[in-house]
Amino acid sequence: MIHSGGLQPEPLVDVVPDYGAYEPLAVERVAARLAAYPEVAARLGGRPEDWQVREVGDGNLNFVYIVEGPAGSVCAKQALPFVRLVGESWPLPLSRSFFEHAALSRQARLAGTVPQILRFDGPQALIVMENLGTHVIWRKALTARERHETAAPILGRFMAETLFRTSDLNLSAAEKKREAALFAGNTALAKITEDLVFTDPYRVHPLNRWTSPELDGTAAKVRGDAEWKLAIQELKWQFLCSAEALVHGDLHTGSVMVSKAGDAEDVRVIDPEFAFYGPMGFDVGALLANLFLSYFAQDGHGPGAEAMKAWLLVQGTRVWDAFAARFSELWRTERRGDAYPASLFEEQGQADASEAALEAFLARLQVDALGFAGAKMARRILGLAHVSDLETIEPPALRAACETRALALARQLVVERRAIATVSAACRRAAILSGADA
Amino acid sequence: MIHSGGLQPEPLVDVVPDYGAYEPLAVERVAARLAAYPEVAARLGGRPEDWQVREVGDGNLNFVYIVEGPAGSVCAKQALPFVRLVGESWPLPLSRSFFEHAALSRQARLAGTVPQILRFDGPQALIVMENLGTHVIWRKALTARERHETAAPILGRFMAETLFRTSDLNLSAAEKKREAALFAGNTALAKITEDLVFTDPYRVHPLNRWTSPELDGTAAKVRGDAEWKLAIQELKWQFLCSAEALVHGDLHTGSVMVSKAGDAEDVRVIDPEFAFYGPMGFDVGALLANLFLSYFAQDGHGPGAEAMKAWLLVQGTRVWDAFAARFSELWRTERRGDAYPASLFEEQGQADASEAALEAFLARLQVDALGFAGAKMARRILGLAHVSDLETIEPPALRAACETRALALARQLVVERRAIATVSAACRRAAILSGADA
Repeated sequence: MIHSGGLQPEPLVDVVPDYGAYEPLAVERVAARLAAYPEVAARLGGRPEDWQVREVGDGNLNFVYIVEGPAGSVCAKQALPFVRLVGESWPLPLSRSFFEHAALSRQARLAGTVPQILRFDGPQALIVMENLGTHVIWRKALTARERHETAAPILGRFMAETLFRTSDLNLSAAEKKREAALFAGNTALAKITEDLVFTDPYRVHPLNRWTSPELDGTAAKVRGDAEWKLAIQELKWQFLCSAEALVHGDLHTGSVMVSKAGDAEDVRVIDPEFAFYGPMGFDVGALLANLFLSYFAQDGHGPGAEAMKAWLLVQGTRVWDAFAARFSELWRTERRGDAYPASLFEEQGQADASEAALEAFLARLQVDALGFAGAKMARRILGLAHVSDLETIEPPALRAACETRALALARQLVVERRAIATVSAACRRAAILSGADA
Repeated sequence: MIHSGGLQPEPLVDVVPDYGAYEPLAVERVAARLAAYPEVAARLGGRPEDWQVREVGDGNLNFVYIVEGPAGSVCAKQALPFVRLVGESWPLPLSRSFFEHAALSRQARLAGTVPQILRFDGPQALIVMENLGTHVIWRKALTARERHETAAPILGRFMAETLFRTSDLNLSAAEKKREAALFAGNTALAKITEDLVFTDPYRVHPLNRWTSPELDGTAAKVRGDAEWKLAIQELKWQFLCSAEALVHGDLHTGSVMVSKAGDAEDVRVIDPEFAFYGPMGFDVGALLANLFLSYFAQDGHGPGAEAMKAWLLVQGTRVWDAFAARFSELWRTERRGDAYPASLFEEQGQADASEAALEAFLARLQVDALGFAGAKMARRILGLAHVSDLETIEPPALRAACETRALALARQLVVERRAIATVSAACRRAAILSGADA
């Protein structure tokens, strides 16, 4: 029966805070602020005067402080009403902190693998988290050719759990729409992706940059490539319209932290301030894109690249395999939502139909992921924001050679995504383009 | 530049009313209520005691009153906190009236072709509109074999204007997300479609009904048809996730009113209470589905069916042609949104790319429309809500024969939608199945 009625629709539980009392922090004001949060003060121990505060200078958007006390340390992240890297000329809403916390707390509940939240001060746009002191950014570890064997499977599983459990496969349509409507407020961050990933690299735009003059001709060719442009706009349409699940929205290797102590590894996903309801393939594609970028960058970082490159392609397939395996388990055990309802497949002989539906679903998702991977690769070479994997390569001619091969794969993934169809086929294309298997 | 920031996201302009003071009307209380609305009283003229009120008994969900005064007449539609046809055992939120008004006012602004709104009393869930006294429901006119030549092109144009202008093709992503979030509150009505169109006909369910015993075997076969079930769930996924535009949500031939006075015809679209952000193809498919149902029903309504059947298939292609023509005009002249931004196609030699993108967009939309058309046909034969076109056919064996042919087309449209690809090909399939061209 339907009976989902009642006089009033349920109100949203979460509401964007009022920022009337917002005050931006600075290094010298952090200790006093954190002292007001008992759970944070307890974690740090001692007195605020004893706490060491330093700003971590590597965020593009926000200020991040590491605070160390006698008993422990914390990480405090505060949004400013503008983009940190650019300044007040590029305003950005404080509400991104609210959405980051909303996403972080859902990810913690649904999949773990994120930093522990100690305190969220909504009106101050401030999140205080555990400090991952022994962790490093995965991107940097990859450039340094360090291998964390558990990262790929843990991230595949993380994506399966967050994406499945925030979708119509697990939630009722009403719950899912309420969540999607909440995150629809995070438009300013989505707009950054819409512009920087799906638009600017394909037109003349003052924010674009690339290795010049080496790639001048390539950039012009991309702007005149009608096939690429059309395929990118199909993907942008999905990004704008396809509210499948709560995606992290910025899941590159710089949003992953890894650590190793003896045999024990730890992996965490950070920085979900771009979170919104979008296509599931966007997160999977973002991660694959950055593994491919690291793959093509290896040739620029000295001899001995081949072994790391082979390892990186294996990680690409392991991400997908772990994702698909966990997604399939959830499909079989947690399909309680309005989509593909289990009750449709209960009659005799219909179990195969449910498995066939799963296969078709994953096949479509894999194609989406390949397309988004290509989109995310190209923007890192032709758009505003680049990656250190490639940026640190000298001389420019060597960097441009690596970038040219990466762009060739990016185009194939976007334009031929349906023909390539699988992550392992995409890895083979990467190997062919890099000459490794040629 | 991006600069879409600011301290706070903009609030929603529209808010669902508080229904604390809500009072259901009855025929004897309508005049007193309407007397309180000056614009309504002026339209009716005279004194409330002079007004004739009658309830129009043909709505499934709401109470509709026609009120006639010395100077003119109005139509008053009030939602009740349950489904009118079933009673209090099936609750349904009053907020559907708010969403109906929100959709109606947007349609009026963007495309016209809807009744004039005289008064919206939000807390009373009451919309007072012009009375379309000389109009008839298009479905009934089609069964009576009356031909309104302007209906198909006007409806094609109406859909193009409402769908294009509420999408990311015309709105900024932020505006579109605000609208989508607003209509995401209309979940209870969407849930009716999710269950009755995409789910129940494909499983054993107490609300299902069909011409029995004639179609008992057919209904069982559909429930065991894995291919059909999978394709229907793909379409349901689009219905749940693909927030492309503000769709009417129930655009069948019973939601269209037509009139003819000499050579002058008038066409209006009514009852958008199912409105929500969904796939553009859903509205187009709903209209096509009901033209096809009328087509297959004609053989059950006495001799002389062939001419009307041929005319009906022509209307199907005219709906699509008018839609595609107007959509193409808007693509060329009103593409101001974040999707397929015009600025991408401004460089020399890129005009063809813009047209190629339009063709690909329409081709995909046409496939979606065919799939949704098939879904909407089958539910009218195997699900809860049927159509008078078929229901009035006697004896049941004749009705079942018509319904069997309609179901055969429904399955083709759902399962083979990508191969059929065009509305004119679908019309040819209909003709083959009905034996007209065999």
